[in-house]
Amino acid sequence: MSSLSRLINPSSIALIGASPDQAKLAARPLQYLQRYGYQGRIYPVNPKHASIEGVPCVPSIADLPRDVDLALILLPAAGVADALSQCAARGVASAISIAGGFAEAGAADEQQRLTDICDSQGIRLIGPNCVGLLHPAKGVTATFSSELRNRMPRPGKVALFTQSGALGNAMLQSFNDLDIGLAYWVSTGNEADVGLLDLLEHALDDPEVEMVAMYVEGLKHGSRLLELGRRARAAGKAVIVLRAGKSQLGRAAAVSHTGKLAGAWKVWSDVARQSGVINVDSLDDLLDLALLFDRHGDPSRLRAKGLGVLTVSGGMGVLISDAAAQAGLQIPAFSEQTQATLRSVLPEQMTVANPVDTALFTDEQGYALCAEAVLNDPQIGVLLLVLTRLAHDYTALVPWLEKLSVQAHSMGKRVAVSYLSSSDPLLPEDRQRLMQAGGLALSTPERIVVALGHALQAATGDMDPTDAVPATPSRNAAEFLLNAGIPQVPEGVFNDADAAVAFADAQGYPVVLKVVSPDIAHKSEAGGVALNIPDSDALRSAWTGMVGSVTAHAPAASITGYSVQPMLRGGFELIVGCSTDPELGRVLMIGAGGIWAEVLDDVRFLALPTTEAEITTALQSLRIAPILSGARGQACLDVPAAAQSIQRLGRQFLADPWVLEVDLNPVLVRPTGQGVVALDVLVVPSEPAQ
Amino acid sequence: MSSLSRLINPSSIALIGASPDQAKLAARPLQYLQRYGYQGRIYPVNPKHASIEGVPCVPSIADLPRDVDLALILLPAAGVADALSQCAARGVASAISIAGGFAEAGAADEQQRLTDICDSQGIRLIGPNCVGLLHPAKGVTATFSSELRNRMPRPGKVALFTQSGALGNAMLQSFNDLDIGLAYWVSTGNEADVGLLDLLEHALDDPEVEMVAMYVEGLKHGSRLLELGRRARAAGKAVIVLRAGKSQLGRAAAVSHTGKLAGAWKVWSDVARQSGVINVDSLDDLLDLALLFDRHGDPSRLRAKGLGVLTVSGGMGVLISDAAAQAGLQIPAFSEQTQATLRSVLPEQMTVANPVDTALFTDEQGYALCAEAVLNDPQIGVLLLVLTRLAHDYTALVPWLEKLSVQAHSMGKRVAVSYLSSSDPLLPEDRQRLMQAGGLALSTPERIVVALGHALQAATGDMDPTDAVPATPSRNAAEFLLNAGIPQVPEGVFNDADAAVAFADAQGYPVVLKVVSPDIAHKSEAGGVALNIPDSDALRSAWTGMVGSVTAHAPAASITGYSVQPMLRGGFELIVGCSTDPELGRVLMIGAGGIWAEVLDDVRFLALPTTEAEITTALQSLRIAPILSGARGQACLDVPAAAQSIQRLGRQFLADPWVLEVDLNPVLVRPTGQGVVALDVLVVPSEPAQ
Repeated sequence: MSSLSRLINPSSIALIGASPDQAKLAARPLQYLQRYGYQGRIYPVNPKHASIEGVPCVPSIADLPRDVDLALILLPAAGVADALSQCAARGVASAISIAGGFAEAGAADEQQRLTDICDSQGIRLIGPNCVGLLHPAKGVTATFSSELRNRMPRPGKVALFTQSGALGNAMLQSFNDLDIGLAYWVSTGNEADVGLLDLLEHALDDPEVEMVAMYVEGLKHGSRLLELGRRARAAGKAVIVLRAGKSQLGRAAAVSHTGKLAGAWKVWSDVARQSGVINVDSLDDLLDLALLFDRHGDPSRLRAKGLGVLTVSGGMGVLISDAAAQAGLQIPAFSEQTQATLRSVLPEQMTVANPVDTALFTDEQGYALCAEAVLNDPQIGVLLLVLTRLAHDYTALVPWLEKLSVQAHSMGKRVAVSYLSSSDPLLPEDRQRLMQAGGLALSTPERIVVALGHALQAATGDMDPTDAVPATPSRNAAEFLLNAGIPQVPEGVFNDADAAVAFADAQGYPVVLKVVSPDIAHKSEAGGVALNIPDSDALRSAWTGMVGSVTAHAPAASITGYSVQPMLRGGFELIVGCSTDPELGRVLMIGAGGIWAEVLDDVRFLALPTTEAEITTALQSLRIAPILSGARGQACLDVPAAAQSIQRLGRQFLADPWVLEVDLNPVLVRPTGQGVVALDVLVVPSEPAQ
Repeated sequence: MSSLSRLINPSSIALIGASPDQAKLAARPLQYLQRYGYQGRIYPVNPKHASIEGVPCVPSIADLPRDVDLALILLPAAGVADALSQCAARGVASAISIAGGFAEAGAADEQQRLTDICDSQGIRLIGPNCVGLLHPAKGVTATFSSELRNRMPRPGKVALFTQSGALGNAMLQSFNDLDIGLAYWVSTGNEADVGLLDLLEHALDDPEVEMVAMYVEGLKHGSRLLELGRRARAAGKAVIVLRAGKSQLGRAAAVSHTGKLAGAWKVWSDVARQSGVINVDSLDDLLDLALLFDRHGDPSRLRAKGLGVLTVSGGMGVLISDAAAQAGLQIPAFSEQTQATLRSVLPEQMTVANPVDTALFTDEQGYALCAEAVLNDPQIGVLLLVLTRLAHDYTALVPWLEKLSVQAHSMGKRVAVSYLSSSDPLLPEDRQRLMQAGGLALSTPERIVVALGHALQAATGDMDPTDAVPATPSRNAAEFLLNAGIPQVPEGVFNDADAAVAFADAQGYPVVLKVVSPDIAHKSEAGGVALNIPDSDALRSAWTGMVGSVTAHAPAASITGYSVQPMLRGGFELIVGCSTDPELGRVLMIGAGGIWAEVLDDVRFLALPTTEAEITTALQSLRIAPILSGARGQACLDVPAAAQSIQRLGRQFLADPWVLEVDLNPVLVRPTGQGVVALDVLVVPSEPAQ
């Protein structure tokens, strides 16, 4: 059992600082527990009163029984740490602290005290600075949420975790307004102990939950996202995230090129995709998806994936096709049987393709015949009806819509309804009837298409096994490169032309000659690069010329020597790097390298550990991918060798925490069979003076 | 006066085939004209009745008076052409034909007959296969729109033109539901004569119209879009387009590389942007913008452009900042005075930055103080309030919101309202009061941000004068290249090594040697390319080697000769092309060239004529733009020379209608001062056998 089970499903709740003053926030939780029928034991802790609202008070935490599951601490900031510690000492399993005045108000030390108590005494804490916890099926209302003054959300299978109390409250309101079933809701506040990912982990193991929706401003221990996302997928549970801060997410201070390219939003969205998490763009998108899962269940389990559309406007049909293409949804061609049925109802000049436009050419019976034909089509999983009062009598349609929705469920299919104009919806009570029959209604067809697309996209992503091969830790940069097995071009650095020629003779021509100097940043401009040197005579003459031009260009520069390398031709330059994202931990970056690294920003991030298959997919998703597979009649490049080398690099990076960043730029991917070779390598240790 | 004035503002309307049978569609227009108080003359034309609904009938078209402005032809398809011709003969200025059964049903010839009548007899026609025309301020209801059974839209300043009748009907319904003022509405149907752009042109000259919204499936004479867009901008009128068919727009059959790269949607969106047209993604986006212009007027005329946000959730503030960054909207820092006022109301731990979160820390008075402080801030043009019933008493707020909206208008500013949860809006009557005071309410803050961003984006685009320099027509490809003034690399094609060496000696080394053969597509693979040849000896030896390897590789190939060109170094390869879009006419394409043309798809289209300034902007908007301005310490390239050459090419292409496509790929843009040079040139005439 997860350590959060007693928090989420408490059999007993202590209310530390419960107030009899009905006007105070501290009075609300008890009111709510009573109003919504909590069946467990309740212990208001208040030394000044014998009872509150008819419930006997306990004078102090020390007087609580020894098996309390959850303490809701309603005290101001100054009293929270002591209360928490006393609760832990009394054996209370978990606590929620409501009050603000901690890290968010500059009091990081006070908050650290809470974290320390949790760590040392084993109690789990939600908050501080949060709105609390709500578990409708159990009547658990450990919260002062204003929305509970109105209604309790219907118990359901969507778990909702939020880092903003006010938005969380608004989401509860929307769950009520839209009638979405709620498993439980937690406002996590400052996360001194329990964070969003802890709650996600609990929900993945909890059969009560089928979908998790989260509002995220930042993840604690974000490197767990990858593993939890994979576990969610394995468990068949969708994880939907609305992530705020796209415009504010900072870049980590970085030494390497990789680090500098790592725009934090890009890292987030790449890693979220890798983890199978559904990223949505707005609160409405999140709620639409929650509603979809609540009414339709997981669309990936439907008998067919195709969308069948019945509209009264050809124009709207085209707009829906556009939206579907963008969302990656299929609008399959109808079977011959479906087409024949449609043809029997519609006049000759109307086409019977999907989306089908019935215009005003049907009565109710004909319309029903069309809809049922589309629903029966073997390729169709969801029937989308676009209604308008200009053509339909909503009142007459609703009972049929109910029946059709139920029938669809029995076929492993679903019915969704929207409108030609979003200002022309079903009446609330009619919408309610449709939804209770398992249908879905959203204000526009595009919203249905977007929600379905998101839901199916999550289900169809990769799911690779994690990498289990251990790597040997390294003691320094040279050993790191050796352990990572990065092929490099043989290089000799010389101060003597004869030695250089001997090395070149042994390696084979053509070669490249470059000056090596800590004082010369732009070698080419100093005349310090000579490419494509064909033989030993040419090398001697290039040597002489380069010494002269470098001396003329930078007379004061300290010259380490002159480097000779075999010149490799063919292939394409990648950048491959490793860096440490402040939130998501160790990540790998793969992209177009050399000059293109700066110009194209054509990169993909993968959280570690990752697999060769994931790396191959990432390479194939780059814009420059056509070059890797041999664009314009050029040679096909050695992507399998690249994926293998990069995977090994990532594994080694995980094994060496002392390495902060690694930058291989460029890495030359050579034609098939010739592998990869790193032309420039940088290993940045955590301690600059390693 | 535009030739469409009598159509849009008819003083007299004939109803050809008006029916007294109330159940028929043909009865509706007369009912509507009477119900909505049309003040002009009405002539039902029907030989079988003396009068309909108390209006005396005219027995035939020939019996109409000679000055009728508009004939609404309510006859079935078979009778339309004769009626139209008779109307024209009787001097009727314009007509609308409702019936379907023309091009959309395969009867293109029947439709062409209508076009021919219009062309030869001078009558203007809307339709066929359309829903008609509505002009609320004049009571003109030349339509059978079902929505008029409910209500007439309020007269206003938004003109609405639509190629889908059913969607047009739905938009009318939304205009009514949302209370958006309508100038006039036209459903254009099959556009046998009058098309969307004719109506746009009329509206640009009509002081009654301030904004034009269009639903587009395809434009007739689309090359006029550029000029009309520029005129709209000059007139300060916004043009909003919802374009359907993104997923279906075909590519033109193309010979050149440019033609093949021209995905029609990309051409459309680039040219729409160039024309200053606002492209929206959905019907709701279009309606949001219409509502914005209706209530707020043109946001580009506000005293300041900044958005000031007052929310009750920090999380929502972050989401709004994200949306604003994406929409290109400014959320400026508050002035010190604004901050001081906010500080005086909010508790110390709350930040007073924009967006400002008042949470639950204010009463009504404090909230009003905060809102007024933000509205008064000199950088703020629009105050956005995010309301929630969890914190606000809507009933109490509304009178204050009304007052604030009026006050804002008097300051050259505006107030917009949305909600923490879209399911928690103002009551319809309260929303109505706010909107009547000039405030705007949309269901989510993101929608307000998107609408404002779109509106301001249109206003801040380029507005270049068109190019007035005439070009001399050319008679063939060689003359075209000469007139276009495209610099090319000198090239000689030889069958004799001595001649090749003489040419190379004269041009200077290094040179490039290439085989020229219609039978060898991949020269490199045949050993038919030698780069960087340093002197005459090397050229002779390369010649011998190439003849041998080409002969071995392709013994049956017909060899035209061997080409010698000076080898140019430095610079970057662009692709520049001209093609003819089936809808938008002659367009120019600029992008990353050489191998990158296929790999990156990094191109921009411009409709012709265009200017050097527009071309420069397009070049700077490419992803490879950093290379042009000297990325990674490389030389800055000659963009001014490139813009000049490309502009001249476009001008020449316009002057030579016989040229179908032009492809310069690659064009080398050399370092500043060295200009551009085309390395490969293809001119495709309209007739393959030119």
